[in-house]
Order: sequence, then structure tokens, then C-alpha cells
Amino acid sequence: MKTKAAIAWKAGQPLMIEEVDLDGPREGEVLIEVKATGICHTDYYTLSGADPEGIFPAILGHEGAGVVVDTGPGVKSLRQGDHVIPLYTPECRQCKFCLSQKTNLCQAIRSTQGRGLMPDATTRFHLDGKPLFHYMGTSTFSNYIVVPEIAVAKIRSDAPFDKVCYIGCGVTTGIGAVIFTAKVEAGANVVVFGLGGIGLNVIQAAKMVGADKIIGVDLNPGREAMARKFGMTHFINPKDVENVVDTIVQLTDGGADYSFECVGNVQLMRQALECTHKGWGQSVIIGVAEAGKEISTRPFQLVTGRQWKGSAFGGARGRTDVPKIVDWYMEGKINIDDLITHHLKLEDINKGFDLMKAGESIRSVVVY
Amino acid sequence: MKTKAAIAWKAGQPLMIEEVDLDGPREGEVLIEVKATGICHTDYYTLSGADPEGIFPAILGHEGAGVVVDTGPGVKSLRQGDHVIPLYTPECRQCKFCLSQKTNLCQAIRSTQGRGLMPDATTRFHLDGKPLFHYMGTSTFSNYIVVPEIAVAKIRSDAPFDKVCYIGCGVTTGIGAVIFTAKVEAGANVVVFGLGGIGLNVIQAAKMVGADKIIGVDLNPGREAMARKFGMTHFINPKDVENVVDTIVQLTDGGADYSFECVGNVQLMRQALECTHKGWGQSVIIGVAEAGKEISTRPFQLVTGRQWKGSAFGGARGRTDVPKIVDWYMEGKINIDDLITHHLKLEDINKGFDLMKAGESIRSVVVY
Repeated sequence: MKTKAAIAWKAGQPLMIEEVDLDGPREGEVLIEVKATGICHTDYYTLSGADPEGIFPAILGHEGAGVVVDTGPGVKSLRQGDHVIPLYTPECRQCKFCLSQKTNLCQAIRSTQGRGLMPDATTRFHLDGKPLFHYMGTSTFSNYIVVPEIAVAKIRSDAPFDKVCYIGCGVTTGIGAVIFTAKVEAGANVVVFGLGGIGLNVIQAAKMVGADKIIGVDLNPGREAMARKFGMTHFINPKDVENVVDTIVQLTDGGADYSFECVGNVQLMRQALECTHKGWGQSVIIGVAEAGKEISTRPFQLVTGRQWKGSAFGGARGRTDVPKIVDWYMEGKINIDDLITHHLKLEDINKGFDLMKAGESIRSVVVY
Repeated sequence: MKTKAAIAWKAGQPLMIEEVDLDGPREGEVLIEVKATGICHTDYYTLSGADPEGIFPAILGHEGAGVVVDTGPGVKSLRQGDHVIPLYTPECRQCKFCLSQKTNLCQAIRSTQGRGLMPDATTRFHLDGKPLFHYMGTSTFSNYIVVPEIAVAKIRSDAPFDKVCYIGCGVTTGIGAVIFTAKVEAGANVVVFGLGGIGLNVIQAAKMVGADKIIGVDLNPGREAMARKFGMTHFINPKDVENVVDTIVQLTDGGADYSFECVGNVQLMRQALECTHKGWGQSVIIGVAEAGKEISTRPFQLVTGRQWKGSAFGGARGRTDVPKIVDWYMEGKINIDDLITHHLKLEDINKGFDLMKAGESIRSVVVY
């Protein structure tokens, strides 16, 4: 079949809208009509050329929602008409990682996914007979996609695609880091470094679980109002204080119980660790640092009880947890509407990247 | 009263045996006759002058066992004749740290202890009218000591002092890191960097809880035999392999579930983190690094699920957990006898430091 898609031909160049050829689903695969997709900073990271694992030409996009339109042989958990969110972190429930019950990092299809291929090591996308690579196993900048059954979360059918698509990455990454990775408890003091889309979701999850102080740190004072709306109780602009770590330690009577780094800056990662409380402070790295950058601290910080960890896709198991987060949105427990600042047509997708770069959007969503 | 004690007059000088004056116990304090004390690397660290917080003149020693001979006003949990282990990490059960139930790092008397003083900011030791500083709140290189009630673990009376004194530091540090900090479970693969006194206790605790592979890493091939006796299943000498991390990852089919750094070397701390399993590996820093040294790694190591933490006094709450470890020794669950390689008189205490420096002892114990 044919599908409309935005193609990344080369690093650093705008996406091009084309009609491409899409092969149907094979064994264990499903065909999804993508109804909406967010534009995430990770798409930009790859498009910019900074991602050392970026492969071109590819169809980017990994934050989508849509409907199953066809299923390949052997597919049992999904059928035509199911509303779904495609998952860049699958959940096979069979591999060592899934069975460990200690991580969401299913490795069932990792090696092919990392090479821009389906699990059988081929691509379903072609243009003029030449293959186009998949991206993060999802490629939601195509109106129709083929993905493995294990990389699809089935969600309720009354959830609006143009909102819950954001649960395919950003919402889950922020909310999950609080709930699944750090397991923040009621009464805890929480610090969030970086008040972009991820940070705001960290904040609203901290509020949802009953955190006490929710302290946001950002250089941009324009972020304060929105963050307060989502539950931030204290704002620190590093420009306004002598020492961010000391300020947080004072504000929290010894340090934060949990901190989250949502920027990808290794200096902030260190501050995020060191502003946590002696004895039990946990710092969670969410942001993706530039290639080659390293974090460091004195080991004394850890020996005196702080823990340093990280979170990918919020520690969420996609098929199990993503439908729950959709429910939380539908029940009004979390706010996604205010985070989606722009709706675009696929033809205008490059505008979405411009808005992101300019810091004018929190999230732009392409509606097909 | 008078007591015999080994005095550290200055950094880098041998200890001197003297009769010193000891004031009796004040409110909330107890007088203990120390029956035996281990000589720990931390005593040497301070004596050497490398410890930036070292204070002189002081009576060192922090790994003792003895008997309560007198109690001050208000002491309720101890009485004359109780067999005890003095604690350099107290357990007041009242402070924010104790009440958090998340850490063993009771802070009730930390500031005075750090300054070599009793909680009322005075010392009980004098010589020729001049004060001698306490050390780690214990000073077990004195035959009699005064310590706060909250810094005393009451133990069973049939436990031999010259063995269980080691539970006052080294045994608990190693065993506790496995059981209280990492909470290693049966079937886990464990790696131990450094096969000295702490590492051997990590090994025997890993064996006690049913770990599968217990891999020891040490540059000294002479350590292998004893480590195997304590439960080590695989030995890696970094001199014999191209890459320690790769060797461990291969040996454990993806990485260790838990690793422990028992040396205090920041390069080993990095290896210990990076040899753990993607998704859930936990690395625990036990060793004390030189002042100013920093640990570092790529944040990707954490984002992909590894956790970096530390352990002080094995995460054990002294009054609660130390008596349990004494029971484990008496029940034959753990071996202390083979770790105590030398018994000395107080007059020969400097020999104990020489044996340690030469790597000839695992633990020397002074018996009063």
C-alpha cells in the first residue's frame, strides 16, 4: 500500500513529505493507521545529526496513537479496530529482561530496531524501490506503520488520539520516572531540573502521588507559571541564587528526597545528586547527555546514602503500564491538554521542529 | 580512674602506651571495659595523616567488644555486666535519620563525635591534665572507655570478645552491605573488588544468602585460596585478563546483578558499576577513596538501568542489627575465626599496623 510520510533524507535537512510504499504486516506484526503523533526532542536530536546512532534515510517519529487496521499471522493480542499506542520500548514478556521483573528494557528486538529494521531484518518502507529505515521501531511520522505485536499497547477507545499520543513518550517518561523508577511516596520533597515537557510531567506525577515540596529549577523564568499550574511549589532560577545545591538543601531541611534531571546536562546531573538528602536521597537521570559526556561526583556522596539511578521510558512496561496512564488521563488525574501547545498538519511538520528549537512549544502534535 | 591506652600523639608516629585518666560516665553514658579490639585500616588511615578529619592527640580504635562496668544517670537499656560492642555509628531511634527507616546513619551525636568529643562537647580522657580526643566515638585502643548509651549494642554473653569485636566494624561493613544495603537475593551473581577483610565478608554474606556466581577480583593471587574458602566461585586477577569488565560480563551472561567495591579506588568503582547487568545491576561502594578523588561514568550506564549506591557500616543499625550478626557467628552461619590471623597485646599494637601494611594479616586483634 501507499502511505504519506515525512522522510528524513539526511542529517540537518528539513523533512520531506512523500508517498511511500508500505509492505503489509508479516508474522507477529500489525498494520496501524497513525492518527496523531507528537514531535519529541529525540526526533530532533536524531535529525540534527548529533545522535551517533542515527541512520538515514529514515521515517522519524516515535510518539503516536492510532488504530489497528490489519494483523499478520500469529497475532493474538490485537485485532482490527483496536486503539493503540506504538511502543519504542517493547514488552515481549518472554526475554530475560521482561522476566526479571526488575526493568522495562525488553531486549527482544533491540538489535534490529537499533539498525532501523523490523525483527526479520528488513524494512517495510520503500520509495522508488529503495528501502527507507524505520526509527525507534515506530516511525510515527508515517500515516501508516507496521510494528511488531509486542511493541503495541492497546488502549481504551474513547481516548483522544491527539492527546494520548504524547503518552507514547514524553508523558510516560516523566510520570513513570516518578512512579515506576523512583517510587516517590506521599510527603516526599522532590526537585526537578528542567521544566520542559518531561519536567512538567515529573511535576504533575509528584503532585499526583502527594509529594510535599515540588521544587523546579530552570534558567527560563517563563517556565514558572506553567510549572506552578502543574504542581510546582517552589521555583529556583540558578541565575538568582549563589548556589543551587545549597539553596535546595536549605529549602528542604537537609536535601531533597528525590531529584530528577530532565535536561541532559552532566553538570546538572551532579547538582541533582548532591542536592538530595544524606542517608536516602535518590537522583534519577532522565535527560540524554551529549555523546562522550560523563557524570562525576565524590564517592562520599554515595557512601553517605545517596543513590544515583536513571530512567528510560519512565521505567514503564509499555503494554502493561501505558494503558494505565491513558486511564489516568481520562480520569483527570493528569493533565495532557495544557502541554500540547500546537496542532499541525503533516505538511507543516518542520514548523513543529522550529517551534521546539525556539522554545515556543511544549509539545506540537501532528494530526493526520 | 586510670586506664591503659595506646595514644596517637601525632600523624605518622607509632602509638605510645600510657596510663591515662578516664572520667566516669555522665548522664546517658556507660563505662565499658574493652576486652578486645581489632585494628582496622581506618585506624591506620587516620594515624597516617591522610584523613583530613584526623585530630591529635587521640586514642584510636573503633572495633571493640567488652563489658559494661558502670552506667551514668538515666541509662535504661544497659546495666553492669552486659556484654557489648561499642558503635561508631550510633542508633538513637529518635532523630530524623533513625525515624526515616531508610538509613542507618544516625546523626544524633555526629557533630561532637566528629570533633573527638563526647555529646556534651568535652572529653573523658586526660593525661597530665590535658585532654586526649576520642576517636569515632569509641577509642577502643583504651582498656576502659566511656560512650553514650545510644552507641552501644548489647550482645549475648557467650560470644568470645576476641572474635566478635570484629563485628564492631569490618564484619558488619561487609556482611551488611550485602544484606542491608544491596539486599542480594538467592541466585544472584555477585562481584567483589578487593579480597581483604571487607571483601571476604562480602563473599561470605553472598554465600549465606544463596548467591550463584561469586566472583572475586584482586591483583594479589595469594588472596584466592582464602576467598574460595569463604565462598568465592570465580577468581579474576586483572593482570591475567585483557579487560576486567568484559570478562565479568561474559562470565555472568550480561553482567553481575550486584557488585561491591572494597578497595577505595575510584577506577575500580567505575569498573564495578559498569560490570553490572543492564536493566538492574546495582553497584555498592564500600571502600573509602582518597580525599579529592571522584568517580565518573557515562550517564547512559544509569539510564539503562544500573544503580550506583554506597554503604557505611553495612547499612546496619548498630543496636538492632549488630546483635543479630553476633548470633549468626555463634550459630556458625558466618566465619570470623579464620579472618583473625593475629592476636596481640596492647603493648605490641604497632606490630598490628606493620602486619596490615605488609599485607600479612587479615585482621589483628588486641586482647587486653
